[in-house]
Amino acid sequence: TLNEAKDNAILICHGLTGDQYLAEPHPVTHKPGWWEAVVGSGKPVDTDKYFVICSNVLGGCMGSYGPKTPDADGKPLGLRFPVVTVGDMVRAQRLLIDHFGIDKLFAVIGGSMGGMLALEWLAHHHDRLESAMVVASSARHSAQNIAFHEIGRQAVMADPEWQGGDYDREGMYPAKGLAVARMAAHVTYLSQQAMQHKFGRGLSETDKVSYGFGADFQVESYLRHQGKAFVERFDANSYLYITRAMDYFDLAAPHGGQLREAFRGVNALACVISFSSDWLFTTAENREIARALNAAGARVSFAEVQTNRGHDAFLMDEPEFHRLMRGFLNGVAAERIRKGKRV
Amino acid sequence: TLNEAKDNAILICHGLTGDQYLAEPHPVTHKPGWWEAVVGSGKPVDTDKYFVICSNVLGGCMGSYGPKTPDADGKPLGLRFPVVTVGDMVRAQRLLIDHFGIDKLFAVIGGSMGGMLALEWLAHHHDRLESAMVVASSARHSAQNIAFHEIGRQAVMADPEWQGGDYDREGMYPAKGLAVARMAAHVTYLSQQAMQHKFGRGLSETDKVSYGFGADFQVESYLRHQGKAFVERFDANSYLYITRAMDYFDLAAPHGGQLREAFRGVNALACVISFSSDWLFTTAENREIARALNAAGARVSFAEVQTNRGHDAFLMDEPEFHRLMRGFLNGVAAERIRKGKRV
Repeated sequence: TLNEAKDNAILICHGLTGDQYLAEPHPVTHKPGWWEAVVGSGKPVDTDKYFVICSNVLGGCMGSYGPKTPDADGKPLGLRFPVVTVGDMVRAQRLLIDHFGIDKLFAVIGGSMGGMLALEWLAHHHDRLESAMVVASSARHSAQNIAFHEIGRQAVMADPEWQGGDYDREGMYPAKGLAVARMAAHVTYLSQQAMQHKFGRGLSETDKVSYGFGADFQVESYLRHQGKAFVERFDANSYLYITRAMDYFDLAAPHGGQLREAFRGVNALACVISFSSDWLFTTAENREIARALNAAGARVSFAEVQTNRGHDAFLMDEPEFHRLMRGFLNGVAAERIRKGKRV
Repeated sequence: TLNEAKDNAILICHGLTGDQYLAEPHPVTHKPGWWEAVVGSGKPVDTDKYFVICSNVLGGCMGSYGPKTPDADGKPLGLRFPVVTVGDMVRAQRLLIDHFGIDKLFAVIGGSMGGMLALEWLAHHHDRLESAMVVASSARHSAQNIAFHEIGRQAVMADPEWQGGDYDREGMYPAKGLAVARMAAHVTYLSQQAMQHKFGRGLSETDKVSYGFGADFQVESYLRHQGKAFVERFDANSYLYITRAMDYFDLAAPHGGQLREAFRGVNALACVISFSSDWLFTTAENREIARALNAAGARVSFAEVQTNRGHDAFLMDEPEFHRLMRGFLNGVAAERIRKGKRV
């Protein structure tokens, strides 16, 4: 609940394929919210204390404007929807904050692409927040990550049912291409160790291989399932738009590559967290953010959580990560007391 | 040239999409042979001294039997070609060695999948070789690597032009699916550092992004080119068969997971080499091979070459790697002298 002073709001930014259903069952999959480990009564982001806001990003397919938004003829815009950036996504969020009459957010928190949004808030709207927590993210998307996104987009666009983005008009859906895109992305969310530990060379059903092209191995069944499940809940064009927004994200570019310059004047408290086995958004990339904030004179803490769960660790039950979250938010509250404000 | 004693033959085993054109221009691409850095007059594998054999693997598309082999009606077999294993590939090579009247190979050398073939020789045909060099390989394909192969196969099979493998009969070709498969695989051949160093966030043509889905970034143009070029020289069904053979490769499986048992009785000299930034076939996996050979009482040396070029380093101008190759082959020759044999 938003308090009278409107100063207990935490904005949570979701990842590439996330949405606003962070702490309640998903209406399509009926699975628990994607961040129920973190957000709820008594959880690290304690809904007994905080007014938690989470909205679908611009370009998404769960309610915000995006390529599924109807054109004048009532059919989805498809590729006629303009390409959006992380900056656009955050400007839309800022309008939402304005709508609530919130002057300053207690915190902005985001993991993965959500971390990019939190960084965008820090760089360009830091007058509107007291703190920001950036988890498993990057201030500029790496070449390898652009490459993986491009593979996914090519898989979607190679599917003849994509129809140049007009699949809805044609009564088609590029399900096969989008499933391949998801499979390729999903591998990057895990770690080699986690995959080896979880699946190894285990077989799906029998104790013998089929000498064929079925899903002999558990890891194959798992990936095929991930692809199939994703297609049922996500929109192919939104996948193109949101991956593109991430590719374009580069906070340092307007400053000749000097990331610290992007954070000049930041007064909000910042915390950056990475996961040791995350090879999508590495500890090195996250540390670079913390160093740049520090070089800009901002108050920033950094921690690497030891885990073999890869990038997806930020969505899981990781006690050390959750302890760090609680600690940081308590620190922000303590800072308020120090400044003579009520908590 | 094969000498009179027929004891100067080196068998070189190619990787997943390699072929017999290792030291001469490729007939389709007209590019230099894939291992000209290593094989030739005065090179580490010196053709002035050695009779170098390299044949297309069983299941391939450059001359050996595979899914392109004609059926009774003259059209390609497609999926009616039986699934082959690395063991089958090596048995075919052994028949070739028999054909040449070679009793013992001076060495078997292979990188990546070629290293799997070299390991298969070591484990099951070590009476026919004096030495083996295994480069950037694995004795059992990992879960993550099976996952990447499955992504590639799904990309091919998702292409409607694949036609259940009968594209030739239908006058079609799953070019788009195979290109996506190659793009996904290609990323695994490089390292994050190499991609960042080579491409970073560099743009393809202009100094501004297009806010569209073209190949804005150099890394995108590069990957699209890799996909396109691959489709012109390779067969989609062969890609399915050969990736499957690699997935099935597990030397330890028949021994309850005890890899050392696979190498019992090996008398050949062995050398295992890894590359520090190779995340497809890691140093840990290669070291495991060396340890298992050692535990089986075989004479084995191991080295990790420091490089940021990732898996593809084995195909490149890597002086330390080439020095190790020369040193190992000289050592095998010296061992002959020690045993009182002529060199």
